[in-house]
Amino acid sequence: MSYSVITITREFGSGGRTIAKKLADELGYAYYDYELVRKIAQESGFAEGFIEEFGEEASSSNFFSFFGNNWGALSINDQLYFAERKVILELAEKGNCIIVGRCADYILKDRKDTLNVFIYADIEFKKDRIINLYGETDVAIEKRIIEKDKRRKSYYKYYTDRKWNRAANYHISLESSELGIDKCVEIIKSIAQ
Amino acid sequence: MSYSVITITREFGSGGRTIAKKLADELGYAYYDYELVRKIAQESGFAEGFIEEFGEEASSSNFFSFFGNNWGALSINDQLYFAERKVILELAEKGNCIIVGRCADYILKDRKDTLNVFIYADIEFKKDRIINLYGETDVAIEKRIIEKDKRRKSYYKYYTDRKWNRAANYHISLESSELGIDKCVEIIKSIAQ
Repeated sequence: MSYSVITITREFGSGGRTIAKKLADELGYAYYDYELVRKIAQESGFAEGFIEEFGEEASSSNFFSFFGNNWGALSINDQLYFAERKVILELAEKGNCIIVGRCADYILKDRKDTLNVFIYADIEFKKDRIINLYGETDVAIEKRIIEKDKRRKSYYKYYTDRKWNRAANYHISLESSELGIDKCVEIIKSIAQ
Repeated sequence: MSYSVITITREFGSGGRTIAKKLADELGYAYYDYELVRKIAQESGFAEGFIEEFGEEASSSNFFSFFGNNWGALSINDQLYFAERKVILELAEKGNCIIVGRCADYILKDRKDTLNVFIYADIEFKKDRIINLYGETDVAIEKRIIEKDKRRKSYYKYYTDRKWNRAANYHISLESSELGIDKCVEIIKSIAQ
């Protein structure tokens, strides 16, 4: 079958975003990244920088409402999640697109035309990519990778009640450090077409 | 790169064994299944039927030694595991082969020429396959699938200290019910060559 929507869930530094961009180019699909952030900002009223920082990562303080522990009010995270969810459902409806992160695999789980992909890599590969691509030289880079993925994992768990790195959440999982970025693109493309 | 050994870890009923056989045919690799059992029987002295039943599934009674709770003696499961491990290491050394189950991904984790694959499927697909292929008509088939995978999972956890269904244990994980058996074969083949 062919898939009109591809979701890519990825570990930080694994090259998932690069794979998504290459795939979008090769398939002629839309790749929603900053446009997604812009639309979520319009929908939610939150600033784009805030969405980029907290749109797919758990932050304990945001899990509480502005109004303290008021059970009637949505937390900031929940408000953001529901805005993201609405935008992702709308974009999927338009079709022929690739969406990275933000629990899109879960949000679109009832769409039969959606292929869900998980990209992960070993720690050395991720460190090298982050240092080379983002120009970071922080000696604590490994700690940062682990913490970033921990926050993504908690966010995913909170909104989906699933474990982020469980193969069965996705249709295919690929270790980019073993297979290479281009091979990952080739495999996903051969399934999507 | 090319891989001379492919390990396939699979959920019961997912078609992992069929994929392994087809792959072996197409790549001209040896597929070790009954030959593996025969070699383990020679190595361990256990009966072939016993190895088939307990060679990759936890069974609480076998986790204890013949001699009661004697900490000096290996349990039956441990004896079997170490025999399996030895045979798997020897077969991998011969190269160009496919090994199904039995923690082979973990046992061969230090071999760079080994591609580790995980195959899983949704429950309806697994039920259909088991009923059609094995001719089973047991109404409790779903319960049997869940229990069989539970025992494989416990076995894997015990000997590898890893979670069976975690994507990162493998280089690639494929949902056979979504992608189809032939597509899984095609993808693995394209990586292995």
